[in-house]
Amino acid sequence: MPEVTSTRSERVKAIRGLSRRSVREKTGRFLAEGPQPVREAVLHRPDHVLDLYLTGAAAARHVDIAGAAEAAGVRLHEVSEDVLAAMCDTPAPQGLAAVCRVLTGSLDAVLEARPRLLCVLTNVRDPGNAGTVVRAADAAGADAVLVAGDSVDVWGPKVVRSTAGSLFHLPVVTGLDVEETLTRLRDNGIRLFATDGAGTTLLTDVDLLPAHAWVTGNEAWGMSEQTRSWCDEVVRVPIYGAAESLNLAMAATVCLYASAVAQNRPSGR
Amino acid sequence: MPEVTSTRSERVKAIRGLSRRSVREKTGRFLAEGPQPVREAVLHRPDHVLDLYLTGAAAARHVDIAGAAEAAGVRLHEVSEDVLAAMCDTPAPQGLAAVCRVLTGSLDAVLEARPRLLCVLTNVRDPGNAGTVVRAADAAGADAVLVAGDSVDVWGPKVVRSTAGSLFHLPVVTGLDVEETLTRLRDNGIRLFATDGAGTTLLTDVDLLPAHAWVTGNEAWGMSEQTRSWCDEVVRVPIYGAAESLNLAMAATVCLYASAVAQNRPSGR
Repeated sequence: MPEVTSTRSERVKAIRGLSRRSVREKTGRFLAEGPQPVREAVLHRPDHVLDLYLTGAAAARHVDIAGAAEAAGVRLHEVSEDVLAAMCDTPAPQGLAAVCRVLTGSLDAVLEARPRLLCVLTNVRDPGNAGTVVRAADAAGADAVLVAGDSVDVWGPKVVRSTAGSLFHLPVVTGLDVEETLTRLRDNGIRLFATDGAGTTLLTDVDLLPAHAWVTGNEAWGMSEQTRSWCDEVVRVPIYGAAESLNLAMAATVCLYASAVAQNRPSGR
Repeated sequence: MPEVTSTRSERVKAIRGLSRRSVREKTGRFLAEGPQPVREAVLHRPDHVLDLYLTGAAAARHVDIAGAAEAAGVRLHEVSEDVLAAMCDTPAPQGLAAVCRVLTGSLDAVLEARPRLLCVLTNVRDPGNAGTVVRAADAAGADAVLVAGDSVDVWGPKVVRSTAGSLFHLPVVTGLDVEETLTRLRDNGIRLFATDGAGTTLLTDVDLLPAHAWVTGNEAWGMSEQTRSWCDEVVRVPIYGAAESLNLAMAATVCLYASAVAQNRPSGR
């Protein structure tokens, strides 16, 4: 296994640069940090994993990851803790990180698969929120996540971490225009439900059996009037106590789970 | 309105000290920072608000908060942005903060009210998780949150922020022993459901109509075998896609909402 020994090598600098959106967009690459995202990358999308960097201790502890990566033809590199830390955004990458090619899905491919449950993020800015919604969509068995408008880049380190590997599980299509996306979904018979604390329809009153998409707005200023007007219903999660609202990720999770239950999806686990 | 003018005054230092658990425990006070928690404190528990500090701009912008505080006999103090920043843990308290007395609920009082839906946090360490679960319990109309074992202090600044004011809406009882709490709940006819990704019973198979409590473990190492054994069922949220799990706060939110729906609670909004 070749070694990278200096924290100041060109390679380390190039990898560290992947924490910047501009570098990810130029190179089409991103970094998965830590055992959970790296394992999901290697197991689910090995064709997108280019290089795996790991410490000797991590190679011994995560034989499954190293073995699967090697079998898939991924290039393995042994690094010291210091070198790994210099590559990564997180201060504690727990021994491994993988350079991956961005998974570019297309709206065409998503629509061709006749989706029944989708999630559309519009203008979501907080990496933790975006990542948690992708994870919730995956857990609820959604067919894809569509990222539209001026949203955070889902290939950034904080989003990748908070998805816990879900980015490698379902199609995530980025860089979409809000109006065009919603129009195409509607033209394909997919009902559009905005999730918004100020919605006029209660979640418990919505028929979630037909194909539909949950559309979320920005976490701070909500959803624009225009986006709202493009949706079939503006839906609010009922509040049973005195709380003013749920946060964006919690509301999306509740809505996506209500859909999974209503559509009687088979539960994998 | 009296003014506090120096960032180095004894009063400012004393308030800043409330970001430390030991100081909160000694004084029985905590600090609510920013418009949302302060508004909920003043509207829902004015008897627990001692002093409100606000900038001139915030006094003009939040006439409702200042008015309600004044009517409730809260002491108002005008401060500069700098003085407020020196008092607060958050770098952007948005013009106001309130020193409050800790709301000490008791398990006896909670049980006397014949609760039907409770949430028990055991050994929860992450402030964001603890706060989000309190907010979810409030939104789902739970009767109380019980904080047991070696859990984060819910009166700390990060938890208070992430509850979005819910700490002032429902009884939150802290400092409880896990075994004693679960035993007393069971003796009062309350079924105990552990929420755990490795649970043997699916959420969709549990009868949520009888009085019950959701019991959560630690976010990293889960729930001890012993705590699990004290519960009637160990319940997992179904995973419909490829995600390995939901995070603690998402799982608790889904479980609490399933309970609210099953118990057919009246929705306030």
